[in-house]
Amino acid sequence: MWYSAPMAGRTNDDVLATQWHQLMGRYQHLMCELDRELGAAHELTASEFEVLQQLAQADECSLRMNTLGESAHLSQSALSRLVTRLERDGLLARTTCDHDRRSLFVALTDAGRRRYAEARPTQRRVLREAGSDCLDTQTASSQS
Amino acid sequence: MWYSAPMAGRTNDDVLATQWHQLMGRYQHLMCELDRELGAAHELTASEFEVLQQLAQADECSLRMNTLGESAHLSQSALSRLVTRLERDGLLARTTCDHDRRSLFVALTDAGRRRYAEARPTQRRVLREAGSDCLDTQTASSQS
Repeated sequence: MWYSAPMAGRTNDDVLATQWHQLMGRYQHLMCELDRELGAAHELTASEFEVLQQLAQADECSLRMNTLGESAHLSQSALSRLVTRLERDGLLARTTCDHDRRSLFVALTDAGRRRYAEARPTQRRVLREAGSDCLDTQTASSQS
Repeated sequence: MWYSAPMAGRTNDDVLATQWHQLMGRYQHLMCELDRELGAAHELTASEFEVLQQLAQADECSLRMNTLGESAHLSQSALSRLVTRLERDGLLARTTCDHDRRSLFVALTDAGRRRYAEARPTQRRVLREAGSDCLDTQTASSQS
């Protein structure tokens, strides 16, 4: 468990606030490590990797924009900027669908699939090496 | 515990990646709730509240800039922008110290102390109401 042992003499609310403060630190640390390593080796941020991963795991590597926003945990404006950047780099393309011409879809290109496949081992390694204070690495490894 | 039960048939690394993806969603959700409620009632973001809180809990409500950056989990540039904004609003002031004139300190003003005291019950309520999927609210409440 990522949170520390209970702190004697604190109110419930202060314990929660301390847990939140600790989680912010651990989350930001892991996010920075992912940004740094994915950036250096694959020219991707942690959020860009998540978008590529959501598309790679979807049927035909394609999702509606609003579904992608929800599954990548990004606001509409942040997603729009991110998709524009990845489209410019040739990693994904905006499309429409024959069955639903009103909706905008986003699909991985071949270059996007390759970049995701290359970056995935890096992301997994960083999660293993730097994620133990906010992920349950023990349960994950006991399943092998 | 915030993470889901182990997922059968997945590799360790995929379990970790799923945990990370879920944590991102839960963290972003709680961060958005805090930004929304603290913004509406107290004109503060969640990060600004954390900075006020770190200062309120420090000796003489004052910290070195670099100590504040570490304890608020912000990069130097993000902290600098945030301090400029809070200083413009009269909630904190940059100072130097008689014993250490080379270091820049940041201190809460009286208005900053009042704003923190007003915003604190809102932050605690949001953590209680919206934090249960990434904080250990059960352990916190069993300590009362």
